[in-house]
Parts: sequence; C-alpha cells; structure tokens
Amino acid sequence: MDKNAMKKMAAERSVDFVEDNMILGLGTGSTVVYMVEALAKRVQAEHLNLTCVCTSIRTEEQAKSLGIPVKALNDVDHIDLTIDGADEVDANFQGIKGGGAAHLFEKLVATTSTRNIWIVDQEKVVDTIGRFPLPVEVIPFGSQQVFNKMAKEGLNPEFRMTADGQHVLTDSKNYVIDLHLNQVQHPHLLASWLSEQVGVVEHGLFLDIVDQVVVGAPDGVKILTAK
Amino acid sequence: MDKNAMKKMAAERSVDFVEDNMILGLGTGSTVVYMVEALAKRVQAEHLNLTCVCTSIRTEEQAKSLGIPVKALNDVDHIDLTIDGADEVDANFQGIKGGGAAHLFEKLVATTSTRNIWIVDQEKVVDTIGRFPLPVEVIPFGSQQVFNKMAKEGLNPEFRMTADGQHVLTDSKNYVIDLHLNQVQHPHLLASWLSEQVGVVEHGLFLDIVDQVVVGAPDGVKILTAK
Repeated sequence: MDKNAMKKMAAERSVDFVEDNMILGLGTGSTVVYMVEALAKRVQAEHLNLTCVCTSIRTEEQAKSLGIPVKALNDVDHIDLTIDGADEVDANFQGIKGGGAAHLFEKLVATTSTRNIWIVDQEKVVDTIGRFPLPVEVIPFGSQQVFNKMAKEGLNPEFRMTADGQHVLTDSKNYVIDLHLNQVQHPHLLASWLSEQVGVVEHGLFLDIVDQVVVGAPDGVKILTAK
Repeated sequence: MDKNAMKKMAAERSVDFVEDNMILGLGTGSTVVYMVEALAKRVQAEHLNLTCVCTSIRTEEQAKSLGIPVKALNDVDHIDLTIDGADEVDANFQGIKGGGAAHLFEKLVATTSTRNIWIVDQEKVVDTIGRFPLPVEVIPFGSQQVFNKMAKEGLNPEFRMTADGQHVLTDSKNYVIDLHLNQVQHPHLLASWLSEQVGVVEHGLFLDIVDQVVVGAPDGVKILTAK
C-alpha cells in the first residue's frame, strides 16, 4: 500500500472525532489536505455547525474553497479539537513538526486546543525522534549568528533554501534552520535550549501536546491514545 | 539639570571606550542618538576605521547620514563592543529594554557582542526593575491567546497601540505587549517562562548582559562596572 493511501485512510478516520458545534483547529500538510476534504463532506452531508481555525494560508484557502467556515485564532476564546499531521512521533507521544514550515502557527493553535489528534502514515511512528531534521523558525536579522551557535553546539544546522537558492520564508516571513540530529535523546532539554536562544521564534519539537495519533497502515487504521 | 543633558553627558562619555578597528554595535533610542553624533565626530576627527552594526532602521539611517560605515549583523563574525541605552537597570546590572520596540534586534546584537555598555540618565538606575513596563514582542497570529495566558498569570498585559488605535509594529512586523509589573522580583524565572511561551519572539529582560553602565547625573558622569 502506498504512503498516500495510508495518509488518506488516517485522515478520513480522524474526522469521526469531530462533533457538531465544535471550534476546530485545522493543521497543515499533505495528510491534512485529505482530512479537510473528508471534513467538508461531513459538513455538507450532516449540516454541521463548525468554526475552524487554520494554521496556514494554504489550509485556509482549501477550507474556504470547500465552504468550511473559518475564523482567525485571535477571534476564538478556545479550540475544542485540533487535527494536524506530524513528521515524526515516538512511543511517548513526543513529535517533530515543521516539514512544511508551518510549525509556529501549528503550535500556537495546538497549545490553544483542549485536545490534539495527529494523523500520520505508519512510517512516521518511530522509536526515537530525530531522523527527520528538526525545523527551527528564526528571525532573519542575525540568523547567521544563531546558526553559528547551533553549529558550535553540534546541532548540524542547515538553512532551508528554495531550489533557486533563496531562503524559504514562513508565513511570518522568517527563515527556517533544519537541525540534522539523527536522534533526539533529550527532547525537553533541547526544547529549553532552543527556546532560550535569542532569534529563535519557535522550534518543531511538539512535546506533551498530542492526545491521540491516528495511524494509517496497510492492515488498517490504528488509534494510539496517550495516557 | 534636565534629563536630556544627563543623557547627552553619558552618551558623549561612552564613545571614549571606542577604539580604532573595532566592530561596534549601535543601540537604539534617544540616548543613542546623542552617542552616534559623538561617535561621528570622533570618526571624522581621528579617521577611525570602524565597522558598525545597527539595532534598528532608525539608528542605521542616522549612522549612514553621518558617514559611519554600517554592516549587517549577518555579515560580521563578532562584535567587540555594543553601546546601547536601557529603560531600567538595577544594582545587579539586570535591565529592562524595549521602550522603543527594538529590543529583539538589540538583544541579538548584545548577545553577539563581547562587551556591552549601557548609557542612561540617573533616573534609569533603580533598586528593583519593573516599574518600567516590560516589553514583550509577540507574533501577531494568535497574539490574543498569548495575551490571555499572561493575564491569567497576573502579568497585567497591555497591547502597545499607536495614537490612532493600531498595533505598534516592530521592525520584524510583530506586536508588542507591555507587562505592568511594578516590581520584577525573580527576573530569571520570568525570563524563562516568557521564553517558553509559544508566540513570544523576545522579551525585554536583559539579564547578565551589560558589563558597564555609564550614568549621566547632575554631579557628573558615573561609571558602574559589573563584577
């Protein structure tokens, strides 16, 4: 079974958790695209009354084009449930996100949300996170200094560039540095260190955030629930 | 003696610490304006060979207009000395900056700098910092959620607005929240808490950063040196 089929399976299963009158956070990424499609079908078929908060301009455009009502994060007082993808998640439900450079808005929505569900294909479920390069959003001004500090700490930083050699820009017009770590043995220590660096806007470690992971696998969908 | 005269006195004294061939960081604010003027006079009179890194667009414009050579922070490998103002500094050399909404770039330059000098009038030297509202730069997206968390923690947040009711924007196009604390009893604890909040780009607590404070007072300039 190909990866897209597994993503789609997880995405379609995840919208079963949506209930009428919810304020819902919508993540970003290729798996989320399937989820928003499935959500739009439920909204239309069941006339659900939802308010959705999007984590990126591209998710917002998709949601609006499918008739899903959208509000800004600043205009809601809470979020009941957020459904998002992830780049890696381990057995302790710690994850890495930001492959799509949207992890700042994703984390803002996730930490405002009472409940978080991630939808992934089974390849994203790992023993130890870190094989996926850890994205860090940084302020362009002085970003070379932040990069140098990371290099000195042995974090193997690499600026994320476009095919034509420009810096990839986030929705907030910041740069992304990917840390090639292979294994993150102490995620909380690394998260604290990164948070305290001047110039770091947000890192892609999502610790103690997700409540359930919906995994698409060749033998069906598995639902993992954090304690 | 009026405040501006004390600021000018401190500013003019501070440029005595500048040496030929230095890479120099230039802060932002009303006291720094006097310092850049005094620096330009020394550069011209003594033909100093300096490279300057500016912490704001307005300081950069002033420096360039006076013929001081300017480089971007990303284009230097270190800074020898940074001279900047401060909004408050206590007896332990802990300070608050950001009244001019430039504290993010100021902190990036300060933490890249081998040595930091602050220039202030004597009213800025206090027993305990916190009477000056603590500025926090935040990402506009979801800033209301960050504001709500701060309010819940009893930090008395207030969005900084322009006279015509718009959000004040930093050079990075972010918002500023001022925390009305009156006294900051545990600056390191508060700094850690703020750094870890998603959506906070940088706070105005400058801890363990300044090496010398040049104070303008009616009875002359005093130089305080941190241990």
